[in-house]
Amino acid sequence: MTELPAPGSTERTTVRRLDEKAVTDRSTVHAILDAGLMAHVAVTDESGQPFVVPVGYARDGERVLFHGSTGSRLFRGLAAGQPTCFTVTLLDGLVLARSAFESSMNYRCVMALGVCEVLEGDDKDHALRVISDHLLPDRWDDIRPPTKKETAATLVLALSLDECSAKIGSGPPTEAEGDELLPAWGGYVPISEVFGEPVADSYVTDQPVPAYVKDWIRK
Amino acid sequence: MTELPAPGSTERTTVRRLDEKAVTDRSTVHAILDAGLMAHVAVTDESGQPFVVPVGYARDGERVLFHGSTGSRLFRGLAAGQPTCFTVTLLDGLVLARSAFESSMNYRCVMALGVCEVLEGDDKDHALRVISDHLLPDRWDDIRPPTKKETAATLVLALSLDECSAKIGSGPPTEAEGDELLPAWGGYVPISEVFGEPVADSYVTDQPVPAYVKDWIRK
Repeated sequence: MTELPAPGSTERTTVRRLDEKAVTDRSTVHAILDAGLMAHVAVTDESGQPFVVPVGYARDGERVLFHGSTGSRLFRGLAAGQPTCFTVTLLDGLVLARSAFESSMNYRCVMALGVCEVLEGDDKDHALRVISDHLLPDRWDDIRPPTKKETAATLVLALSLDECSAKIGSGPPTEAEGDELLPAWGGYVPISEVFGEPVADSYVTDQPVPAYVKDWIRK
Repeated sequence: MTELPAPGSTERTTVRRLDEKAVTDRSTVHAILDAGLMAHVAVTDESGQPFVVPVGYARDGERVLFHGSTGSRLFRGLAAGQPTCFTVTLLDGLVLARSAFESSMNYRCVMALGVCEVLEGDDKDHALRVISDHLLPDRWDDIRPPTKKETAATLVLALSLDECSAKIGSGPPTEAEGDELLPAWGGYVPISEVFGEPVADSYVTDQPVPAYVKDWIRK
């Protein structure tokens, strides 16, 4: 248990459970966010019912950016200043302890709390580019940029990383005392996200797969 | 737009955005849940702040099961009957349209709404076994089962699939009219979760990696 107050850590983002997994340095928070493609965001409807919605995102300095449709009832709640939670979890493996109780999963997780800001004008255009550059590196210059109408139909939100925490579980299991003597095999099975061979659509004639797309297949 | 009322679909789980991606048959909901390992669950604290928390889980018929520590402040809220949302998203690929606006991700997502039930007694023991069998197939008989104390320290929750929806995006991009004539390459890049070679911990002497663990490396 080596928890330290981090820049951006507050009472409510202090990791309480399994706090040996708490990570507080800023560069680790950034690295986890930069390694992920999809976050899960909390949105609450008028009745108080929460929804957990997957979104593509990007980190831009000390904030995360994501977008939805201006027609989305749930996203309008976020735009209206609802408190939210933005969570990115990267599943890294299965942890095989010699007891059911200590068996678990390895993962890296960042959770940011706050109220989203709606981006407009140049900041909105910049954000759309940043999100594209994170999810589809180098793609932007190859494709048609958004029209004014498309940009108007897109709600672009930013959430500050001022209040956030990270948790990492990695490596072999922690065994309850004595369990290490049990005969079962113990250890972990790594899990990773792998990019497969690009699949061309029916409009591709003789264009080769772009070099930048081939570069994505590194994970 | 071919949305039909599904068993378990209600006004608030009716997919409104991109409803061509809505999926309503029960077997698809089950298949998505059975293919996933980790869900994101909404929990709200006393102040109304939502949290989105990753959990390992399993499907058991028409409910999903997951567990946390009885010491977890957030999980106690779920146990006390807070409305929640349980979301599983499987990221299947990057979709490269010829416009920024139509570029997206392929994914399968199930969202279940409701109030969790706290499991006790035989149902709790059964649930712990079902969760282990889903996350770590065939592992249970090889390891030490939970002690009474360990089971008492574990909060096991069930959420019915009575109110749920699914959404699937797959295959090549949908292009805005005319964009298919642009010169850029278009298509998609598949993403999959891959299990790596098992890593033994320091207590393993001459035990080989169990056959059932090798069987997991199929994805």
